[in-house]
Amino acid sequence: MAETSSDGEFGIIERYFASLATNTAGAFDLKDDAGLISPPEGCELVLTTDMIVAGVHYLESAAPRDIAYKALAVNVSDLCAKGATPSVYLLSIALPEKPDPAWLEGLSEGLAEAQSDFGCMLLGGDTVHTPGPATLSITAIGAVPAGRMVHRSGARSGDRVYVTGTIGDAALGLVLLQGVQSALAGNLSPDHEAHLRSRYWRPRLPVAAIEVVRNHASAAMDISDGLVGDFMKLCEASGTGGALMGAAVPLSGAASAWLAKEPEYFSDAITGGDDYEILMTVPAEAVQSFEKDCHARGLRITDIGHISSQQDGVEVIGADGQALRLDRRSYEHF
Amino acid sequence: MAETSSDGEFGIIERYFASLATNTAGAFDLKDDAGLISPPEGCELVLTTDMIVAGVHYLESAAPRDIAYKALAVNVSDLCAKGATPSVYLLSIALPEKPDPAWLEGLSEGLAEAQSDFGCMLLGGDTVHTPGPATLSITAIGAVPAGRMVHRSGARSGDRVYVTGTIGDAALGLVLLQGVQSALAGNLSPDHEAHLRSRYWRPRLPVAAIEVVRNHASAAMDISDGLVGDFMKLCEASGTGGALMGAAVPLSGAASAWLAKEPEYFSDAITGGDDYEILMTVPAEAVQSFEKDCHARGLRITDIGHISSQQDGVEVIGADGQALRLDRRSYEHF
Repeated sequence: MAETSSDGEFGIIERYFASLATNTAGAFDLKDDAGLISPPEGCELVLTTDMIVAGVHYLESAAPRDIAYKALAVNVSDLCAKGATPSVYLLSIALPEKPDPAWLEGLSEGLAEAQSDFGCMLLGGDTVHTPGPATLSITAIGAVPAGRMVHRSGARSGDRVYVTGTIGDAALGLVLLQGVQSALAGNLSPDHEAHLRSRYWRPRLPVAAIEVVRNHASAAMDISDGLVGDFMKLCEASGTGGALMGAAVPLSGAASAWLAKEPEYFSDAITGGDDYEILMTVPAEAVQSFEKDCHARGLRITDIGHISSQQDGVEVIGADGQALRLDRRSYEHF
Repeated sequence: MAETSSDGEFGIIERYFASLATNTAGAFDLKDDAGLISPPEGCELVLTTDMIVAGVHYLESAAPRDIAYKALAVNVSDLCAKGATPSVYLLSIALPEKPDPAWLEGLSEGLAEAQSDFGCMLLGGDTVHTPGPATLSITAIGAVPAGRMVHRSGARSGDRVYVTGTIGDAALGLVLLQGVQSALAGNLSPDHEAHLRSRYWRPRLPVAAIEVVRNHASAAMDISDGLVGDFMKLCEASGTGGALMGAAVPLSGAASAWLAKEPEYFSDAITGGDDYEILMTVPAEAVQSFEKDCHARGLRITDIGHISSQQDGVEVIGADGQALRLDRRSYEHF
């Protein structure tokens, strides 16, 4: 943090960001050079960072509220999948020389909504000028009981594979937002269209699943780059193979309606990314207590496959029992 | 962290950044979605974040080694001034579509040097693409014994004001690098020129002062935006006034040689910024033990003024005993 005068960077912090830190212990109203955390007794801290660039990570037409919400969501999503309870975050933001006050106002509101949804508060930040696109970098911090962080690498042959929520909504929402003229265009109900678009703009994080992940999962990660690609990464990190049953992948009503008519979009649904659901593996002997625990909490989870040994490779089995050929497996930054 | 395929973002992490995290407990070789910290027994964590944009925060001609070094330095500098021992950092980096391997190599080397100098290791990060200038965002984390973080706001009337090291070298170095044709141009010795330039490119952090800051200072902050402006901020946060004695401000041999011939550059030296020394206040009754402690550690510290009550305002007294008129007080981002 490097505030300057009252009408410069410091003014922006004061006007748009200070309210996000009012109740954060250790943020000192964003008036010191650093924030302070006292980890809960017996806990370790999980830290993750993600950067979001205008025009790269969100459409140019994105509202600042949604940009801000998603920027925090993509970070907190990593914490959830590690079994960590979100706590605080730091925000660095690069803005054009004369930032639009309405844009900053929207950004602040979106962060406030996300904070409230995720139980996470602003601890500190930095505001700088850039001649390039607006860029947000967030570092989010969560707490886990010591030794309980859930890794990518813990899956073992015989584990079952689960996902929270539904898959593919955001990816299909993006297809709609990009104006792709599919045969279906205009044939989705307004409710279904709205659902898919909103899941693209506003990831809905499975924060209620954090404890069950921590208590039962042998491995977990958030699904940000596409179910198939992320499953491959989990298997690679764990040194295993695995199989996903395409027919078991949970779909929303909107996605089901679309894919019933245009099944070729199933590939987008399972490789498109931006789901921010949790992909996890559960040892066979823990499945019963895991499912019971999820049921008791009203969590939607779905068994979509299993982990096998490395030499079996990773495959996705279609409804016809044949392995699917996939055009692309995940979203790529480079 | 959101790695993708082996020839994309993941390849860049593997090639240029993984070696920076090899010895970091909790970084998991950058192969998980998040890093883990176990704070030392009885300690709290201090967190700070700063973003660096190409062409804004460093000259276009900057070498990637220096950019990287400075990016970590400006963050660790905040930790030092809070009395926190640097521990780990997270790095988010936005790069052009086809980043130059030599540039990335230099960046990695500069980070390795800075890690070694500051005792700080890479915990995690994110690598994304930007159509704008290369942008680095770092979040640095340090540890302090519980309740011992040093704030900006703790100065009290009667405290003495100290700085570590020398002031103005980086600012004068920048004047040289910008090719300003002062009467002195070409008259500095090659050694003096090299010293000033190198202090601009490579902040030298007073990491050895962390413990004395923690043990003796009533308030502290790093000098990043200029001594005068930062002193004003410290007084404002503390609700005090204060006076700096211009003649007492410690100068390097190079800066002294320059200012002896062109005293008008004194204003640049004390308002130009990029010093990354520590500005701190010490209660009068603690001065003796503070100075003794610094002496025992071989630390260069200089008494440059005192804190007074708020109604006295903040002033800088020149060598002639008159308050100086200053054109600008600090570096501004907006």
